[in-house]
Amino acid sequence: MNVDRAHFEAELDQRKHFIEAHLQRYLGGETPRPGLIHEAMHYAVMNGGKRLRPILVMEAARIAGEEPDKVTPTACALEYIHCYSLVHDDLPAMDDDDFRRGKPTCHKVYGEANAILTGDALLTGAFGLLAANSELEGIDIKDVLQVIQEVAQAAGSRGMIGGQVIDLAGDACFSPAALSELHRLKTGELFKAALRAGAILGKMKNQDLEALTRYAYSFGLAFQITDDILDVSGDQTLLGKPVGSDDKNARITYISLYGLPGSIEKARQSVQECLVHLSCFGPEAEFLRNLARYTLIRTF
Amino acid sequence: MNVDRAHFEAELDQRKHFIEAHLQRYLGGETPRPGLIHEAMHYAVMNGGKRLRPILVMEAARIAGEEPDKVTPTACALEYIHCYSLVHDDLPAMDDDDFRRGKPTCHKVYGEANAILTGDALLTGAFGLLAANSELEGIDIKDVLQVIQEVAQAAGSRGMIGGQVIDLAGDACFSPAALSELHRLKTGELFKAALRAGAILGKMKNQDLEALTRYAYSFGLAFQITDDILDVSGDQTLLGKPVGSDDKNARITYISLYGLPGSIEKARQSVQECLVHLSCFGPEAEFLRNLARYTLIRTF
Repeated sequence: MNVDRAHFEAELDQRKHFIEAHLQRYLGGETPRPGLIHEAMHYAVMNGGKRLRPILVMEAARIAGEEPDKVTPTACALEYIHCYSLVHDDLPAMDDDDFRRGKPTCHKVYGEANAILTGDALLTGAFGLLAANSELEGIDIKDVLQVIQEVAQAAGSRGMIGGQVIDLAGDACFSPAALSELHRLKTGELFKAALRAGAILGKMKNQDLEALTRYAYSFGLAFQITDDILDVSGDQTLLGKPVGSDDKNARITYISLYGLPGSIEKARQSVQECLVHLSCFGPEAEFLRNLARYTLIRTF
Repeated sequence: MNVDRAHFEAELDQRKHFIEAHLQRYLGGETPRPGLIHEAMHYAVMNGGKRLRPILVMEAARIAGEEPDKVTPTACALEYIHCYSLVHDDLPAMDDDDFRRGKPTCHKVYGEANAILTGDALLTGAFGLLAANSELEGIDIKDVLQVIQEVAQAAGSRGMIGGQVIDLAGDACFSPAALSELHRLKTGELFKAALRAGAILGKMKNQDLEALTRYAYSFGLAFQITDDILDVSGDQTLLGKPVGSDDKNARITYISLYGLPGSIEKARQSVQECLVHLSCFGPEAEFLRNLARYTLIRTF
């Protein structure tokens, strides 16, 4: 169950750069008017993120036998949605964070009103990109519409936003089941939408699509648990955010429910589940297997 | 250039009720979980609005020869977008309004964080509805994708949101041209998207679609000028908001640029332009003609 860190990080980096070149392109090389909002959108997106969601979109398409190039608008749309959610989460009325990945948050640079609008613009632009994917040759427009509906569902009031609402309500008596449900909504749903989007556009057969969907939830869990672990044991410089912030914010985490050793064990179990879900695939799913394994050794 | 107020208001009311029945349905009859966000979405949408944008969607479809029933998801999506923009505009970081149409604004009832998320959820849900329109019989899915792209453009950083950013920047030296541009972005673009959406789904021929597009901009202008006029001369009870708020907020308006008589004249000119743009249509466009005429006598 090992993954070569240096080798895998180089692979992640390569994909990240590919996606960032496309993000740059969609954000506009020239300066669209009005300048301020486009500058703020650029700031919010080109922020050193891991680009996990677009990587998942492209990887699922590749496994389905489609050229990853054919799903770049959709991949970037998922990143827009992730970035908008971070901009809004950081707002004073929400988590009130001044820094993200070591840089001042969007509202610290552009003000609160513009940050709200920047998030709105990224969310709106995301759906424009999803629809624009229909213009690429070989893409079935019926599949594009299915992707738009699934993304809207996953990112909406019964998905990611619903999770955020539950999190904000801040019920201090989360049961283990409620915590899982919270994270399924907050992060799992968008991971699922990313993988399914690439797979659907790549015409993956239903049975494999179901396997990938199950992988998405287990991967989301592994990712969230290791996020909680990093918050207590990570390196602030690498993380780009203060360590111990969950504790400071009195957040219920896997650590507060299961302790550090128990959380590490739970993360391992989730990764194991990821591998089981991928057992219907051959070597073509090795990147996704490694990505799951990598969550256990990631430092940021 | 007259319209029978009582008769036309009854017609508007009938359409409004039809749309509200569908909005209710899309918002969910049962109580979807999590309850809070769905309650807040309901509050933000079922707020006594005029439902102009969905009325425009359905009317354009009807003129194109399509059953208005076939575009109700799209019609309601446009209303979701309008409502989300109001929820975010009212936020303390934006216009900081406590009341809208005589009721406490969303953030006064549900708190700022939930109001931000409510807007986000309506915007996300809007695109889900636009895509869902493809499921209705007789609708060409290629047209649905075009509508999604046009709506994303009109509501996005180069459309409605761009206008909001310019407005917030609050340049006190707006030229008449800059004020027109501001309102084209802030309100005209979404009116245009509404009319074009219905027309595109109804397979209206290009030349007529262009005429309708020009009508949309002139109608937006007439609507905005009469909005400014109502702000100085309207009845607070009917408007549901304080009269004189533009002046209080030191906003540049048509009144401050052209005075009241000059603004009334400009509104008349815009309505005249609306009628000219509709000259390629016969009696089937009479409702849109009356709608333009009605802006001059509306009281709310």
